Amino acid sequence: MPEREAAFEFLREQLGDGGVDADGVVAELRRLEIETPSWGYGNSGTRFHVFPWPGAARTVWERIADAALVHRLTGTCPSVAIHIPWDRVDDWTALRGYAEGQGVRLGAVNPNLFQDDVYRLGSVCHPDAAVRRQALDHVLECVEIACRIDSGILSLWLADGTNYPGQDDFRGRYRRLLESLGEVYAALPDGMRLLVEYKFFEPAFYQTDLPDWGTALLVCRRLGPQAQVLVDTGHHPQGTNIEQIVALLLVEGALGGFHFNNRKYADDDLIVGSVEPFELFLILNEIVAARRDSATTATAETIAFMIDQAHNVEGKIDAMIQSVVNIQTAYAKALLVDRLRLDEARRAGDVLGAHRVLLDAYETDVRPLLAHLRAQLGLAPDPVQAFREGGYAERLAAERGAIAYEPR
Amino acid sequence: MPEREAAFEFLREQLGDGGVDADGVVAELRRLEIETPSWGYGNSGTRFHVFPWPGAARTVWERIADAALVHRLTGTCPSVAIHIPWDRVDDWTALRGYAEGQGVRLGAVNPNLFQDDVYRLGSVCHPDAAVRRQALDHVLECVEIACRIDSGILSLWLADGTNYPGQDDFRGRYRRLLESLGEVYAALPDGMRLLVEYKFFEPAFYQTDLPDWGTALLVCRRLGPQAQVLVDTGHHPQGTNIEQIVALLLVEGALGGFHFNNRKYADDDLIVGSVEPFELFLILNEIVAARRDSATTATAETIAFMIDQAHNVEGKIDAMIQSVVNIQTAYAKALLVDRLRLDEARRAGDVLGAHRVLLDAYETDVRPLLAHLRAQLGLAPDPVQAFREGGYAERLAAERGAIAYEPR
Amino acid sequence: MPEREAAFEFLREQLGDGGVDADGVVAELRRLEIETPSWGYGNSGTRFHVFPWPGAARTVWERIADAALVHRLTGTCPSVAIHIPWDRVDDWTALRGYAEGQGVRLGAVNPNLFQDDVYRLGSVCHPDAAVRRQALDHVLECVEIACRIDSGILSLWLADGTNYPGQDDFRGRYRRLLESLGEVYAALPDGMRLLVEYKFFEPAFYQTDLPDWGTALLVCRRLGPQAQVLVDTGHHPQGTNIEQIVALLLVEGALGGFHFNNRKYADDDLIVGSVEPFELFLILNEIVAARRDSATTATAETIAFMIDQAHNVEGKIDAMIQSVVNIQTAYAKALLVDRLRLDEARRAGDVLGAHRVLLDAYETDVRPLLAHLRAQLGLAPDPVQAFREGGYAERLAAERGAIAYEPR
Amino acid sequence: MPEREAAFEFLREQLGDGGVDADGVVAELRRLEIETPSWGYGNSGTRFHVFPWPGAARTVWERIADAALVHRLTGTCPSVAIHIPWDRVDDWTALRGYAEGQGVRLGAVNPNLFQDDVYRLGSVCHPDAAVRRQALDHVLECVEIACRIDSGILSLWLADGTNYPGQDDFRGRYRRLLESLGEVYAALPDGMRLLVEYKFFEPAFYQTDLPDWGTALLVCRRLGPQAQVLVDTGHHPQGTNIEQIVALLLVEGALGGFHFNNRKYADDDLIVGSVEPFELFLILNEIVAARRDSATTATAETIAFMIDQAHNVEGKIDAMIQSVVNIQTAYAKALLVDRLRLDEARRAGDVLGAHRVLLDAYETDVRPLLAHLRAQLGLAPDPVQAFREGGYAERLAAERGAIAYEPR
Repeated sequence: MPEREAAFEFLREQLGDGGVDADGVVAELRRLEIETPSWGYGNSGTRFHVFPWPGAARTVWERIADAALVHRLTGTCPSVAIHIPWDRVDDWTALRGYAEGQGVRLGAVNPNLFQDDVYRLGSVCHPDAAVRRQALDHVLECVEIACRIDSGILSLWLADGTNYPGQDDFRGRYRRLLESLGEVYAALPDGMRLLVEYKFFEPAFYQTDLPDWGTALLVCRRLGPQAQVLVDTGHHPQGTNIEQIVALLLVEGALGGFHFNNRKYADDDLIVGSVEPFELFLILNEIVAARRDSATTATAETIAFMIDQAHNVEGKIDAMIQSVVNIQTAYAKALLVDRLRLDEARRAGDVLGAHRVLLDAYETDVRPLLAHLRAQLGLAPDPVQAFREGGYAERLAAERGAIAYEPR
Repeated sequence: MPEREAAFEFLREQLGDGGVDADGVVAELRRLEIETPSWGYGNSGTRFHVFPWPGAARTVWERIADAALVHRLTGTCPSVAIHIPWDRVDDWTALRGYAEGQGVRLGAVNPNLFQDDVYRLGSVCHPDAAVRRQALDHVLECVEIACRIDSGILSLWLADGTNYPGQDDFRGRYRRLLESLGEVYAALPDGMRLLVEYKFFEPAFYQTDLPDWGTALLVCRRLGPQAQVLVDTGHHPQGTNIEQIVALLLVEGALGGFHFNNRKYADDDLIVGSVEPFELFLILNEIVAARRDSATTATAETIAFMIDQAHNVEGKIDAMIQSVVNIQTAYAKALLVDRLRLDEARRAGDVLGAHRVLLDAYETDVRPLLAHLRAQLGLAPDPVQAFREGGYAERLAAERGAIAYEPR
Repeated sequence: MPEREAAFEFLREQLGDGGVDADGVVAELRRLEIETPSWGYGNSGTRFHVFPWPGAARTVWERIADAALVHRLTGTCPSVAIHIPWDRVDDWTALRGYAEGQGVRLGAVNPNLFQDDVYRLGSVCHPDAAVRRQALDHVLECVEIACRIDSGILSLWLADGTNYPGQDDFRGRYRRLLESLGEVYAALPDGMRLLVEYKFFEPAFYQTDLPDWGTALLVCRRLGPQAQVLVDTGHHPQGTNIEQIVALLLVEGALGGFHFNNRKYADDDLIVGSVEPFELFLILNEIVAARRDSATTATAETIAFMIDQAHNVEGKIDAMIQSVVNIQTAYAKALLVDRLRLDEARRAGDVLGAHRVLLDAYETDVRPLLAHLRAQLGLAPDPVQAFREGGYAERLAAERGAIAYEPR
Repeated sequence: MPEREAAFEFLREQLGDGGVDADGVVAELRRLEIETPSWGYGNSGTRFHVFPWPGAARTVWERIADAALVHRLTGTCPSVAIHIPWDRVDDWTALRGYAEGQGVRLGAVNPNLFQDDVYRLGSVCHPDAAVRRQALDHVLECVEIACRIDSGILSLWLADGTNYPGQDDFRGRYRRLLESLGEVYAALPDGMRLLVEYKFFEPAFYQTDLPDWGTALLVCRRLGPQAQVLVDTGHHPQGTNIEQIVALLLVEGALGGFHFNNRKYADDDLIVGSVEPFELFLILNEIVAARRDSATTATAETIAFMIDQAHNVEGKIDAMIQSVVNIQTAYAKALLVDRLRLDEARRAGDVLGAHRVLLDAYETDVRPLLAHLRAQLGLAPDPVQAFREGGYAERLAAERGAIAYEPR
């Protein structure tokens, strides 16, 4: 490992010349926590096919074991989001204990409001009060589960929407949405946050009831301070400036968390940063900037960093690790931004100069910083490689086999 | 003209069989008022070229004369929006008198915050307080002008934004925006509305300070009830469901008005409804629906219907008339929607049935209704044809000539 | 039915005044043939859920029966496209006989190259020759089936593509594509056409091997004259001018057929014309125009009109009928376009005038024409209503029940 | 400068461990030539305003002087594209001599077919033969100019298109396009290439006559081998995979050159790589790959690398240098891709592994390589900084002043 340390030393010196304290950056990186999703460890696919992956997790216990493995290899993923009913168990204490034994804790609870036949026309926005009741009871059960597992976050994504002009009444659906979520909000215990996710399209194809951050924020404002907006990076129209939305939600104190993933065209749930790594850097740059601004520090410090992705044609665990690494990479670069020089350039109206301050950070190879951090944690420098060379995939495939798609 | 009346009688009977009162529809159509923009009567173009049109208006007086001609031919455009400084005069009383003499009144006042060299990095969001001051003084002058001409609306479109990642601070720009508009709001007299327009992109290419309805609504909420959102139909990302935004803003009591136009890709300012007439119908359908809902009637009744379009390759006046006709057509169809049947189908969860109620209205040929309305008003049945056959274009071309582009 | 005939008579007179022969239009409408897809009659859905529809077809026999019902109600859908293996039977003669007994014939044969586990990295473009071999054997079997059922069309849609930058070699994939399709082409008997479909995205999310008409045409040119491009209206980037692509392919003699459907954002397979009816009209207008141009008549006359849509939240049969009606409606309007006046306006450089010629046709209510055609054929004037009032849905639901999703 | 060399040595060693010869990479970088556009040195803007920049070039002589300065600072921009009539002079020998005296040569000749009033309805596709004649004469003059200045490239961008459905006949316009370009092609001397550019939209807003690479390639195929496609990176629909288009055109031997720039939403002509640097890397990666493939080497070696961008809110010269640096950066990273490992991963079907090979190259900080190259050339390590600290901007501003927009 002396070569790796030499690279870190070289970088530390270079950064030091630019006034950046590499050890401070590593210390901040060490505080970064990223939650991985249990559903990212099982088989997934498109409406056309689900390709089974050898060794993909089949049960909640296996999903948690895989999440724990990711944490052991990266040192940065101490919690795992769960999805109800896919991860429902009879004995929550046992599940909690199992997770803790594996070295992770249970994180955000995600209700499922799309998979039941009664949800054809929506769940909490459905025209029929009985269906709304069923949907609400499910969400309330999830609040209950969150209490049991001591989770502070309920992540709410709605598949509600319509497929045809005229199909339903926009105003009516919005009112039902507010009324339904009002009941959920009332059931939240102190300290539990309701994160309201939006999505531009799919699976409803003409209209989505929570299509954009604006609607999500309106809903949160009606509910109260425990409701915040959840930004899924793949859920925007083409050409959207996501980093600006992030900044705005930070000013408004309304950014609750992220579902990180990437896409080229629509909501593809690809590996985080695999298509637009610069955008990922710009998003994290806004968060770092907001942390240094006293008016937004509080919100910026409580953002939940969660991954929400699906692996259709590649292995699950190493792809998840890659996403974690990509977030760390972008975050490390964001920490390198020289904010003093940036402010000077902005104040001087120096457009190119300000842009170049970001470029300087982005072009830096931060892998030595991350390797140094991992060495501090007693980890291998490249966790994807460590997974691949550790024989994990082979062992899991042997134990679990390749299963055909189980309709969840 | 007995043939035309026969067509109306035939339609009246058909509609009557479906329970629709054709005369009531005509009466509602008669109340529709559409404001045309003074800037739509002069030459306009792209960054590549401005093609001069023979007879295009050259002065504010000519622009008002053209707007008045559109009103005389359509009976539905009693006001004209003005743009400062393009339409600035020394004697506002004289201009008002001139307009009234022509049969129209002066409508919304539109400040210009993009044409001065100092606005390179923005106007009311500019990093430099001196530039913001200049921009604000201009807007305050516009409030003053609105008072003088007895206009109830200040329409605010900002070209503010940035072209490169890092160029400026999102949070800072947003705070400056709020502060600046706060000063404008404080200057509004009772009864005057500030309509805040948003635009997804252009002329700023990386980020726009008011990029979407969500930001515009946040700003309005910070300001107060006299601030409302202005929806320009061309200012959305591809694939956006505009009619849903309209419905949501109506529920929130925040829809102030429209800038109607159409586009295929970006903000092209094409003739209203020329590319997506069904979308125009769906938008107007939401307004008609909201008028019949007591919770939204008040807002729906005070929406300002304004056209904002530019005519790059075609004549100005007949294209403007065509836009007016297209709005009337879509509105007439929206008035034909059988809302009772629609509600029944929705309550029954009959997706196709509900959609078909809209189709029934949309497929109806409403030209006889419009011709009947025009006959009531003493107008020709086809105002575009009336313009074209009336020798207006030739006369204006002879009087005014074809001028090369005057940089405004 | 006198009222309906009165409406037709009224319209006939009006059209006659404009120089249009209504009976001739009806005669042309009578020649229109639209193929419906067997897979449109079964349950379908998104990656999130498949909602079972009571009475949805469960077998190839039921799917053909439903297609035949659509033909009996519309008089315009004499053939049904089949999908292999979903519609594979042991005895093709029996299936053909069954279809003929129901009054329809078997149409285009659609291979399935996405549903087998081996296709994770592609089918005919797969890096592994053994997988390509399997894919090719399947397509060759489909050619064989097409011979057996006397179908003249093989419709080829590939799900091939990649999910990540670097995953595979673009040039290599393209060469494999050409090589594979070369073998398919060589197996085509005289008179059978290979229709090559393209799709901008999904289910591959970073890159699609046949992403646009340009690639499809290049492939067809390499293959020979029996290969032509298949345009699926939902498979384009946002903002694409599809009618121009149609016109260009007609000039190039390369337009083989359509898969009609509609979408708001991505490939949603919604009811044809349900979101953008004007675009549908403009597409059909290009076909009518090309039929009247001797240089393109031959190609324009052999276009296969096929529907490819899925019904996720609504009934299958009436939605399919609605699509048929919408195509007929748009086609009828296209037939009304006054091409003489259009040419005059274009030659005169009269932009608005030319546009208005299209509007005149589009704004006409053609339902009386279609009702007249149906009366000639002994059909009810509104086939959707006829289906709904005929008790078909109830009978099918009783017979077939609501089945849960059978993974195809 | 020992620190810089230390960084290079460190990197050289690291790369060497991975089997990459850093000196070979530097040698390849040294062969890279990028052409800058004369029009990028003058003032430019949007349809809303053109902000004058102090010291922006006012004449063709000044534009060439600025291009030469960029070459002196970067060592990689030995030619400058010219635009007729903006850069037309009476004495071409004098201009050539001036350029050579400055150390650069004149490059691609770009006709202007959008700025004359007669082009309202198009140029070479215009319905009127007289306008087409005028347009063709202009292009033929440009061929003549290219001969005089010994340029091997005619770059053809058309603004032709229509703004409204029905405005003109797609088939007719395409035929006129083919006929017109046929005449241009016939006039090309041996060895001169005609590069045909496409653009998805703007300034025509409903339809563009050359909207995509497919149409451009069809046209080139009709013309002959001296016609090739010109890819402007900003001219695609949202979500387009440009690197795949590049690969396909390389296989087809049809990629003539690039107009590099960047955009967030539409054609914004931003600094190359400023919004999506990873996409730029992926594009250059295809070119490097094609150079190593004997079937595509010939085409890949003759690609013209040209920048086409406009600087609306920033200085011209340093922004141009930044674009050059960004291309060099992306190219250097593309040269680092371990193609052996990449092929192995692809052959093994290792999706993530193949992707990671690209990431490895992309994450490398190549600035030491570029600094080393510049040191070899006797240049400062950071040419933007060299420009900014060299007092050039101040001197030019003093000499030239800030001029208001001269309508070109």
